[in-house]
Amino acid sequence: MGKPLIECVPNFSEGRRPEVIEAIVAPFKNRPGVYLFDYRADEDHNRLVVSLVGHPAEIQESLLEAAKVARDHIDMNTHQGAHPRIGAVDVVPFTPIANITMEECVELARSFGKRYVEETGIPVYYYEDAALIPERKRLEVVRKGQYEVLKDEARTVPARRPDVGEAALHPTAGGTVIGARKFLVAFNVNLDTDNLDVAKEIAKHVRSSSGGFCHVKGIGVALEERGLVQVSMNLVDYEKNALYRVLETIRMEAKRYGVSVVETEVYGMVPAGAVLDSAAYYLQIAGFDPQQIIELRLLQMMGEAAQ
Amino acid sequence: MGKPLIECVPNFSEGRRPEVIEAIVAPFKNRPGVYLFDYRADEDHNRLVVSLVGHPAEIQESLLEAAKVARDHIDMNTHQGAHPRIGAVDVVPFTPIANITMEECVELARSFGKRYVEETGIPVYYYEDAALIPERKRLEVVRKGQYEVLKDEARTVPARRPDVGEAALHPTAGGTVIGARKFLVAFNVNLDTDNLDVAKEIAKHVRSSSGGFCHVKGIGVALEERGLVQVSMNLVDYEKNALYRVLETIRMEAKRYGVSVVETEVYGMVPAGAVLDSAAYYLQIAGFDPQQIIELRLLQMMGEAAQ
Repeated sequence: MGKPLIECVPNFSEGRRPEVIEAIVAPFKNRPGVYLFDYRADEDHNRLVVSLVGHPAEIQESLLEAAKVARDHIDMNTHQGAHPRIGAVDVVPFTPIANITMEECVELARSFGKRYVEETGIPVYYYEDAALIPERKRLEVVRKGQYEVLKDEARTVPARRPDVGEAALHPTAGGTVIGARKFLVAFNVNLDTDNLDVAKEIAKHVRSSSGGFCHVKGIGVALEERGLVQVSMNLVDYEKNALYRVLETIRMEAKRYGVSVVETEVYGMVPAGAVLDSAAYYLQIAGFDPQQIIELRLLQMMGEAAQ
Repeated sequence: MGKPLIECVPNFSEGRRPEVIEAIVAPFKNRPGVYLFDYRADEDHNRLVVSLVGHPAEIQESLLEAAKVARDHIDMNTHQGAHPRIGAVDVVPFTPIANITMEECVELARSFGKRYVEETGIPVYYYEDAALIPERKRLEVVRKGQYEVLKDEARTVPARRPDVGEAALHPTAGGTVIGARKFLVAFNVNLDTDNLDVAKEIAKHVRSSSGGFCHVKGIGVALEERGLVQVSMNLVDYEKNALYRVLETIRMEAKRYGVSVVETEVYGMVPAGAVLDSAAYYLQIAGFDPQQIIELRLLQMMGEAAQ
């Protein structure tokens, strides 16, 4: 078994000052065990989204360094931006990629949260799978009213008290939401019709909120320039709701309207398992082991070699 | 672009003496840049097959060390075994895996061949894509009559003279065949009939030797214990003859007999691209980039970090 590999996508409340953005990101660069896939600052949101993959210990060290930079340069009392937020380091989700279970990611989030409070002085709320209070599983519940409301309620309303740290937000850096969640796959299916109702109806049948697959979120969207419609989805558990199963259900539903699938899109990054699982289904491969893939085996061996 | 990655499967003429086998394999172990996937000795064949993946420079160094061990411990004049062979280090094929073209692998094979002769004193024949003489593309042509015939003909028959080195084999270690070839995927398709003729007939339609796909070799085989038959194939160029295309052709042909595909097998290792290509076909993913796969991106970044 190779070294554990996680994804972490910390969100910082700074999308406008290039020198601050670069200072926050610096601890993620040229650091063994931490791979900086991407970072994007949005001026309207006044927010920085960083994509990291790597080994848990090294990712935690780099996060602590980056958090101290954000804490010292961002004042939530003057921060403005279109995206909801409660702190300078707003959200830190840990996601299992390889050689680590979700349970271990939950433990990781919770132990990191304790150390984080000690070293940064910023109080922590746990969310998603790491939530200690069931309501806090949902990020929007934790962030309700954002920094402006929470800075008072954290002191005065017991139900809004941080999970770790003082019953008060940090005077300038606010609070941080730390958690563990599964990898989210963005999967879109384009249909050869300009009838938006078809996409909306099909989206209803595949998404959990209207009784479809338990781990699919989805809406119907018009692609007006192309004269097509799209079922735009997030698969929040691609192991339970595999790409092929969701796609075949959409193909089957579309037939009802004489409509077919023009193409699909996998947007952004995706773990190998999400795609290999569908390949094994369609190719009917019996007993397929991802370790038969040269590159995955190599990665595993490199992890072992590094241990 | 990451570091070039190749596969190399050297075959040595020793399958019986464990201490010699371990001495040959030792240079491939615990060596940065060389990943020893597997090694298997066969007593009947009296042959050792080693699977390596890694970076070209480090693989070449380890091969030279291993070749010297084989040269010093194997005497072809007394060697016996069921598998055709011409030397102690019988065959060394280089296969591109990532960040390297076939043309570069051909150059690699040829420059390695020159150095190999200088350092080991064993003459070299080039085969497959690295062949200098068209007939020598085929390994069986180079190995015709095996060591016993070639040791005389290498001196006396101009057409059998080594490509590099003296017009004579090494007195104990014979000669070595070095080359570059594409990755070979072993792909079997099991059919729900016990009629072997069906598998044989379908194999005829998909393999190149009887006019099917140009880069498929295949035969029909009975799986007697299971009461099934199998189209057993080697895809010698999985980029030109993709798994999904071969499988769908077999499904289509099988329909003629009212037969369907029970399951398939991908035997042994396979490059990610071979499977992802089929996933992208069946899932109809538009513009899919293998670098969207987290693990492949990570491997690429690790290669860059190591440069």
